[in-house]
Amino acid sequence: MSTCLIAPSILSANFAKLGEEVDNVLAAGADWVHFDVMDNHYVPNLTIGPMVCQALRKHGVTAPIDVHLMVEPVDRIVPDFAEAGASIISFHPEASRHVHRTIQLIKSHGCKAGLVLNPATPVDVLDWVLDDLDLVLLMSVNPGFGGQAFIHSTLEKLRAVRRKIDATGKDIRLEIDGGVKADNIGEIAAAGADAFVAGSAIFNAPDYADVIRRMRAAVAAARG
Amino acid sequence: MSTCLIAPSILSANFAKLGEEVDNVLAAGADWVHFDVMDNHYVPNLTIGPMVCQALRKHGVTAPIDVHLMVEPVDRIVPDFAEAGASIISFHPEASRHVHRTIQLIKSHGCKAGLVLNPATPVDVLDWVLDDLDLVLLMSVNPGFGGQAFIHSTLEKLRAVRRKIDATGKDIRLEIDGGVKADNIGEIAAAGADAFVAGSAIFNAPDYADVIRRMRAAVAAARG
Amino acid sequence: MSTCLIAPSILSANFAKLGEEVDNVLAAGADWVHFDVMDNHYVPNLTIGPMVCQALRKHGVTAPIDVHLMVEPVDRIVPDFAEAGASIISFHPEASRHVHRTIQLIKSHGCKAGLVLNPATPVDVLDWVLDDLDLVLLMSVNPGFGGQAFIHSTLEKLRAVRRKIDATGKDIRLEIDGGVKADNIGEIAAAGADAFVAGSAIFNAPDYADVIRRMRAAVAAARG
Amino acid sequence: MSTCLIAPSILSANFAKLGEEVDNVLAAGADWVHFDVMDNHYVPNLTIGPMVCQALRKHGVTAPIDVHLMVEPVDRIVPDFAEAGASIISFHPEASRHVHRTIQLIKSHGCKAGLVLNPATPVDVLDWVLDDLDLVLLMSVNPGFGGQAFIHSTLEKLRAVRRKIDATGKDIRLEIDGGVKADNIGEIAAAGADAFVAGSAIFNAPDYADVIRRMRAAVAAARG
Amino acid sequence: MSTCLIAPSILSANFAKLGEEVDNVLAAGADWVHFDVMDNHYVPNLTIGPMVCQALRKHGVTAPIDVHLMVEPVDRIVPDFAEAGASIISFHPEASRHVHRTIQLIKSHGCKAGLVLNPATPVDVLDWVLDDLDLVLLMSVNPGFGGQAFIHSTLEKLRAVRRKIDATGKDIRLEIDGGVKADNIGEIAAAGADAFVAGSAIFNAPDYADVIRRMRAAVAAARG
Amino acid sequence: MSTCLIAPSILSANFAKLGEEVDNVLAAGADWVHFDVMDNHYVPNLTIGPMVCQALRKHGVTAPIDVHLMVEPVDRIVPDFAEAGASIISFHPEASRHVHRTIQLIKSHGCKAGLVLNPATPVDVLDWVLDDLDLVLLMSVNPGFGGQAFIHSTLEKLRAVRRKIDATGKDIRLEIDGGVKADNIGEIAAAGADAFVAGSAIFNAPDYADVIRRMRAAVAAARG
Repeated sequence: MSTCLIAPSILSANFAKLGEEVDNVLAAGADWVHFDVMDNHYVPNLTIGPMVCQALRKHGVTAPIDVHLMVEPVDRIVPDFAEAGASIISFHPEASRHVHRTIQLIKSHGCKAGLVLNPATPVDVLDWVLDDLDLVLLMSVNPGFGGQAFIHSTLEKLRAVRRKIDATGKDIRLEIDGGVKADNIGEIAAAGADAFVAGSAIFNAPDYADVIRRMRAAVAAARG
Repeated sequence: MSTCLIAPSILSANFAKLGEEVDNVLAAGADWVHFDVMDNHYVPNLTIGPMVCQALRKHGVTAPIDVHLMVEPVDRIVPDFAEAGASIISFHPEASRHVHRTIQLIKSHGCKAGLVLNPATPVDVLDWVLDDLDLVLLMSVNPGFGGQAFIHSTLEKLRAVRRKIDATGKDIRLEIDGGVKADNIGEIAAAGADAFVAGSAIFNAPDYADVIRRMRAAVAAARG
Repeated sequence: MSTCLIAPSILSANFAKLGEEVDNVLAAGADWVHFDVMDNHYVPNLTIGPMVCQALRKHGVTAPIDVHLMVEPVDRIVPDFAEAGASIISFHPEASRHVHRTIQLIKSHGCKAGLVLNPATPVDVLDWVLDDLDLVLLMSVNPGFGGQAFIHSTLEKLRAVRRKIDATGKDIRLEIDGGVKADNIGEIAAAGADAFVAGSAIFNAPDYADVIRRMRAAVAAARG
Repeated sequence: MSTCLIAPSILSANFAKLGEEVDNVLAAGADWVHFDVMDNHYVPNLTIGPMVCQALRKHGVTAPIDVHLMVEPVDRIVPDFAEAGASIISFHPEASRHVHRTIQLIKSHGCKAGLVLNPATPVDVLDWVLDDLDLVLLMSVNPGFGGQAFIHSTLEKLRAVRRKIDATGKDIRLEIDGGVKADNIGEIAAAGADAFVAGSAIFNAPDYADVIRRMRAAVAAARG
Repeated sequence: MSTCLIAPSILSANFAKLGEEVDNVLAAGADWVHFDVMDNHYVPNLTIGPMVCQALRKHGVTAPIDVHLMVEPVDRIVPDFAEAGASIISFHPEASRHVHRTIQLIKSHGCKAGLVLNPATPVDVLDWVLDDLDLVLLMSVNPGFGGQAFIHSTLEKLRAVRRKIDATGKDIRLEIDGGVKADNIGEIAAAGADAFVAGSAIFNAPDYADVIRRMRAAVAAARG
Repeated sequence: MSTCLIAPSILSANFAKLGEEVDNVLAAGADWVHFDVMDNHYVPNLTIGPMVCQALRKHGVTAPIDVHLMVEPVDRIVPDFAEAGASIISFHPEASRHVHRTIQLIKSHGCKAGLVLNPATPVDVLDWVLDDLDLVLLMSVNPGFGGQAFIHSTLEKLRAVRRKIDATGKDIRLEIDGGVKADNIGEIAAAGADAFVAGSAIFNAPDYADVIRRMRAAVAAARG
């Protein structure tokens, strides 16, 4: 499996021409479309929901859509996103009383399931469900709040979760989200991440392909 | 003042090319952009938030953006929408403990303020705040649930609210949302509405200008 | 239509032999089974749910089961009760953000729909939905709290709602619940009620048939 | 009964020496101590609770303490305030699912009971409980938010509630809270209020007795 | 102490003749009555409350009643169940902000106290309260959702909790609930459980005594 | 740094003359003012808010004010307390969805930040944020409930957290709150605490200075 999946967050794209933006970033080499859903309850912001996801599918997007639910509660909206074309659905364990059940619910709708850890969330939330997951997403900023830099302690947390994943022997992605840029993606990859969400670092760059290429190069270099 | 404002709901537009859709519908004669915000709490759906509103403004939309908040609670997100370019912000009285205060909050951010009544909501929620409002929006379907037809008793409710508005002597819009089509807009206008939200009736039509023209004609005919 | 429906509340029955209790009270002349559902949120008590309703149907009860939902929110549990054999489902308007929609939901599952008014609830909650209802239930005690007597002002409220119902020209039941006994049911009927919930007055009596007979007689006498 | 009760709100007093402040304002002629309780949920502020009320009683305050609960839910804290020495406990109907029951609860603990109407709250919340109340409190600003002026439409609302109270023939206080000053108290009294909460108007004045005297004079003058 | 307590869940019994069902299952050799309480908030279902528990006691049931609270919040209903005759009261740590306090509350009402771990709940929730508990209940299915099989990773979790319990040197039961049947109870017992909830496996069997006998035999065999 | 900070909880002071009480206890040798904020939601009690804190500052208190927020949610009230003069703001991790962010929020307002662990809360909530904290507060009773004794297992928890703090090499206070008295403060200090909240032990004593002196002596003796 590829060890460097680039997942641009469309929160930084131009919502007036989202289809074109997504087409461009995929053409520039991105692997996944990262789709940030905020409900003004789990986080103090409200972004985009299933209708926008579905519009991207109808527009012709075939790449995996990686939905990050920053909503609470979780279960009611899962079928909506599955029907709207989500490929992966990730959620925060604090936002569901029945984490194991929510994972099964996502899978029963034909999607891959991920769990997202906030910067302060202990890693033992993974203890009894890691085997059931397709993805672990570590937040390296606090979701839903703007203007934050990469939280440095996440590197140690990446290493801790990487060890847990490797111990399962399973094909589980370790994704990172928050403050990822071409100049720090190397050490992030070295700490164990193999999927990388980037928003402004890509969509604010003049040349999407160039920044994605530099990201991949930095990851490759860091892994020697 | 114009007595026939057409406000297409962008929920029925193509979210992959929203700027173009809004440009087209305005070029076709629409007056306002109706912007439906759902938070998966006040209603069981999540749609679009301030970022999408802001993208329309950056795209060049200058028409009034008529934001209908189907969110609970209301106050936290009001400044975000004001900053994102909203012209009018409407909310449901059940969703705010301090309805008078929320109206002042909206106005203090430079927007016009509206109150939205669900199909079952008694009209006395207007008793002590009607003078402070710029808009009353009557729902003729239940917000957030799909596939509903215009609820017929709304015609009587329109007449009741029209009488209250006329008694104030003020310039307060009476808007209707839900199941409005070219073939019933006449009797809706006759009952007192002067602003009309329409979603699929416009965006699913092959020719936006044609349907808007027919709507205006029906309104004019109904008023004699 | 019968103007004196007796609906014993099974909250006062013996839950260790509920099927037999219900059989007996129906054999004694009761018309409906009144089924009080409390969720420890809308009211500070938790009683019985859909499984118990279903057990009565499997036991062979064919009389109408009149489900009074003292739960919040309402919508999620409606299909469960419909499937469990409920005939009528009533709810409190404060417990649903979308009262019109909840009524439609109940009907779409093949049940009759009722609205319940707490002692302090204004009657204008009926203004825009009365035509859609099969039943209005007035609480003459506060639901979920024990040891209360019939609240006398309910008689005036019954008269007010009776006038509204008669104005519709429709077949809408006016039910009363709380502190109903053989010695006050007459004046309650005279005020406009035509369906009567009684709990301890029936189930604590040595002879169910006798008390039901006296209730009917008192209603007949009061109506002259 | 006195038709001009002055109730200084201790929110404007000096909390570092509250006993002395209350002693002074009562010595200056105030009738009641108005005690504003905010819980950071019903309103966005948190003030003082039962312990502070109890401290005033232990300090020797014997005047009526008029507790205004801006909290949600209401019932749990009622016994605490009764035990702490509250004389009157008022609450907002939106904050209790069982308004009639909460009134009985307050009375069962030996206190008088009041209902508080926000600026936008319709007066029909009084319809079925006015007879049970000792006090109606009309908010003439939005509770919990600073820096507001008296909302002028409250005068009409005072007249509407005054008519309802007079129709009961009972001894029910009509209290006003928000922006009351010596220069507007006259027209407020003329509109029907007979109890007046004032905070900064009293505690920010150099001479408490002087401002209370001027308030009483203005009330007397307005009533002719 | 017995190392094989069988606790039939009455959710699978016939609610129309619950007393008889419970009598029969106890006569057939069951040790405890397992009583599943759902409130439609902590889990999406509503079952039975204190009144039903009390009815069993009045019916003559003297065996321990093992109440599993799938409710949130927990504290308010604890005294009700204690008064209704509960012997053991267990709750989920996520459902109480003050887990240590809730345990003391249960004990102060004369009941034994248990903590329940959902399939995904980390075992460190036991770290600072295990010494205070009489029971740990591990869920081997997600509570409140139907049609699930025994989650296999629970075996490892049982072993982990068994080690913790043994380290205390105290008499703390380790109970299992979900998908327990005669053909897997052996390996469950081997993993450390000593109390076994079974619903349909017992109540859907033609001969309660036979299945309970087979369960005990399998446990004995597994322990060699 | 001092290894014996005494922080009297003003909940046990006389609220009728709070300024004087605080002056006295500081003059008697106390180091900090401990300020317990309860909102009737996170805990079943409501105490005092920012206005009371501000009054102490205006009164002339210059000692550190150590604010313990027993409120949920946390973020909205943080700026209010910072503005009111709080020096340290501590909160419970269960009460914030975004613990790392709340810590940054407190610091961005110029205050020191603390995390509070309830008796049952696992210590791994500190894993990824301990480096960012100025204070860890362990509850040795359940916050918000009266009449409890020091929970003995807290001693072991103190040792566990002390090891974690020492491992960081940073200057992070370890504070204890609940049942601290002159006769147990020695073993508490020996277990690792270096800041001690005491309420009734100080304010109910006839001589504040004497009890504080005895506390310090006991701490010194315990540390040898």
